[in-house]
Amino acid sequence: MPAPFRIGLAGVGTVGLGIVSILQSHPDLVAARAGRPVQLVAVSARSRKDRGVDLSGYAWEDDPVTLAARRDIDLFIEVMGGHDGPALAATEAAIAAGHDVVTANKALLAHHGQALALAAEARGSAIRFEAAVAGGIPVIKALTEGLAGNRMRRVMGVMNGTCNYILTRMESAGLPYAEVFEEARALGYLEADPELDVGGIDAGHKLSLLAAIAFGMQVSFHAVELQGIGAVSIDDIRLAADMGYRIKLLGVAQMTGRGLEQRMTPCLVPADSPLGQLPGGTNMVVLEGDAVGQIVLRGPGAGAGPTASAVMGDVIDLARGRRGPVFGQPAATLAVPIAAKATTPAAYYLRMTLIDKPGALAKIATCLGEAGVSIDQMRQYGHQGVQAPVLIVTHKASQDDIAHAIARFGDTGVLVGAPVALRIEEV
Amino acid sequence: MPAPFRIGLAGVGTVGLGIVSILQSHPDLVAARAGRPVQLVAVSARSRKDRGVDLSGYAWEDDPVTLAARRDIDLFIEVMGGHDGPALAATEAAIAAGHDVVTANKALLAHHGQALALAAEARGSAIRFEAAVAGGIPVIKALTEGLAGNRMRRVMGVMNGTCNYILTRMESAGLPYAEVFEEARALGYLEADPELDVGGIDAGHKLSLLAAIAFGMQVSFHAVELQGIGAVSIDDIRLAADMGYRIKLLGVAQMTGRGLEQRMTPCLVPADSPLGQLPGGTNMVVLEGDAVGQIVLRGPGAGAGPTASAVMGDVIDLARGRRGPVFGQPAATLAVPIAAKATTPAAYYLRMTLIDKPGALAKIATCLGEAGVSIDQMRQYGHQGVQAPVLIVTHKASQDDIAHAIARFGDTGVLVGAPVALRIEEV
Repeated sequence: MPAPFRIGLAGVGTVGLGIVSILQSHPDLVAARAGRPVQLVAVSARSRKDRGVDLSGYAWEDDPVTLAARRDIDLFIEVMGGHDGPALAATEAAIAAGHDVVTANKALLAHHGQALALAAEARGSAIRFEAAVAGGIPVIKALTEGLAGNRMRRVMGVMNGTCNYILTRMESAGLPYAEVFEEARALGYLEADPELDVGGIDAGHKLSLLAAIAFGMQVSFHAVELQGIGAVSIDDIRLAADMGYRIKLLGVAQMTGRGLEQRMTPCLVPADSPLGQLPGGTNMVVLEGDAVGQIVLRGPGAGAGPTASAVMGDVIDLARGRRGPVFGQPAATLAVPIAAKATTPAAYYLRMTLIDKPGALAKIATCLGEAGVSIDQMRQYGHQGVQAPVLIVTHKASQDDIAHAIARFGDTGVLVGAPVALRIEEV
Repeated sequence: MPAPFRIGLAGVGTVGLGIVSILQSHPDLVAARAGRPVQLVAVSARSRKDRGVDLSGYAWEDDPVTLAARRDIDLFIEVMGGHDGPALAATEAAIAAGHDVVTANKALLAHHGQALALAAEARGSAIRFEAAVAGGIPVIKALTEGLAGNRMRRVMGVMNGTCNYILTRMESAGLPYAEVFEEARALGYLEADPELDVGGIDAGHKLSLLAAIAFGMQVSFHAVELQGIGAVSIDDIRLAADMGYRIKLLGVAQMTGRGLEQRMTPCLVPADSPLGQLPGGTNMVVLEGDAVGQIVLRGPGAGAGPTASAVMGDVIDLARGRRGPVFGQPAATLAVPIAAKATTPAAYYLRMTLIDKPGALAKIATCLGEAGVSIDQMRQYGHQGVQAPVLIVTHKASQDDIAHAIARFGDTGVLVGAPVALRIEEV
């Protein structure tokens, strides 16, 4: 019988208990796949309250840092969360002790991934983070291993289930953002700081990790263009649907001649595309490589079971001795990405309200033309009093040209309120 | 600089040249991800004709068995095809020589997988076969590694692109099977023996491999219930669409209390489900585990690039030293599956033509009732002369009860021709 693979688990909330549940419910299956017994040795959490699960068989540490440094473990699992503080200190302690690390903490890696990877690789430790991106979908493995023969072209993803829930619920129930936001809060779907979800920060963390492994670059979360879903109105959702699109909080990373482009912004995608059809809290990642073409992965983005599944995939790999560099290539060889100053040109959806005067629309069209933006479709909806809602879909244009045109709109005196501009992503 | 990982490649047709292309076009990327240079040393193929690619840098062997046994290679790649003959002999020779093997050959593994795995594991060699199932989709890796923490419940897949092309083309163009079959043949989409495609054999090979790794069982292709798409009529496609379904050649493997169920048959799936929306030559695999829930993977199922991508994923894993048993657990520990004698109950789609006499429909309904099959929906279409087409969707029923009912239909004297029965799979 080969030696057991011994685990210290920091965090016994929802995800931690999901891991305990797998280890307690089918240890034989895990051992068969890992080639050796996988044994939970010690746990730590903020309180010792009763969690409805028997944890008495494991040593208890009040301090996750002490747990991480225990000499009787091979692997430290971190599912506490937080991009600094105990999660960081414990992860560093585990690496210093020569242990492998499995983490579900996207914020930690988005902020400290490069430093942690350098430390781990210097010490011969592995850090694995399948659970940090897109929940139960094994996308880190697909990118770093399955598609390793490809030069990646583009990586896209809907990776915050709460945002996707809010946007699909707005469309299906015809409710405004604020109302669905409150629903989501009442259902417990939102982080304690909701801006992590609806501001696109959580999804941006994930995108920065995908971009790093897809393009062999250091994680650079600070370079992600972030825009949340708070400004998406029910009008936009309806008008987009009317033209065959859906609005998604879509992350896109691609390597361009001008550098690495990373965005997490609300975009229009065709309603009949896999991304357009993604319902509720589900996640989807689209991987495009030069040899393979397009691979689409879909699955649950959060929750105890899916996250524990991702953690256990990493645990079993490490128990089996299937190892590799943290980001697919040695951290010391990863380049610092040059952030692309402008995004790849795209068609844009523009919605604005005009005062009802002759020539108003012509003035807007002139601004677009002068900024070098040509119009693909224009729809003027029935006048509501003296204000005329206008919808324009442009041909492909640069983000800068769109911004210039919008800046000029202001000088025309025909605009009521601010115009809305959303990118239409080709998928 | 670590020692190069040296390859012998048997087969330089479409897929083989796809592999050569990756190795020639970005060796640095491959080396960075593999942790060492990956070097093609020798190739073999049936003829030395000019393939438009420079192969002069590699040693040439006329005999793949000689190639497989060369002492200057670490890895033997088999992309020749065929479930016996040279492919089998060369694979055995590579294992005997202590080499690792990467193969795209689903037929070979469906027939000889267990024997080859036992031989390889006894010798310390690895056999990897990502390219054998669902083309560029990294599904073997997802199942054996990414989702290894799950007890799998069900695995489903549309895994023959040609069949999916034929079925979607029949629907979109409104053409009968025979005509689209000839189109597919003219386009070169069909195997030399088309029955491998349209008879479901190729897809059945793939399903048997997925079932083995999902459920920790020996490959048992002979136990797959096979039914091709030749009997699917344009009428069935239209009527199914009318009720919100699409017809797919769908593989399903699930472990039941009655044993392992493996089927590759035309099924109805909801038109708005990911499987229902799968277009043309694309493949899709659905993996359902107890912790993760449902994961859906979609991508190109064939072609030089996707297949070479899958091969290279395996190559890079092996070069890195990421190894494991062939079927996820040691072959010696895999159980011989007990084949389920009956399939899991499902709703069925029944189409038949009745003579136009009073009481005809009642007689059919009586047969169903007496066989214990209850009716969910029934539609009678406008009479065409004296024949009335009737469509019935049953509540969940066993395959046996459906068969009994159909057997009784014959005694009623009201049936014109044979009825069509298709399973409606819950997805």
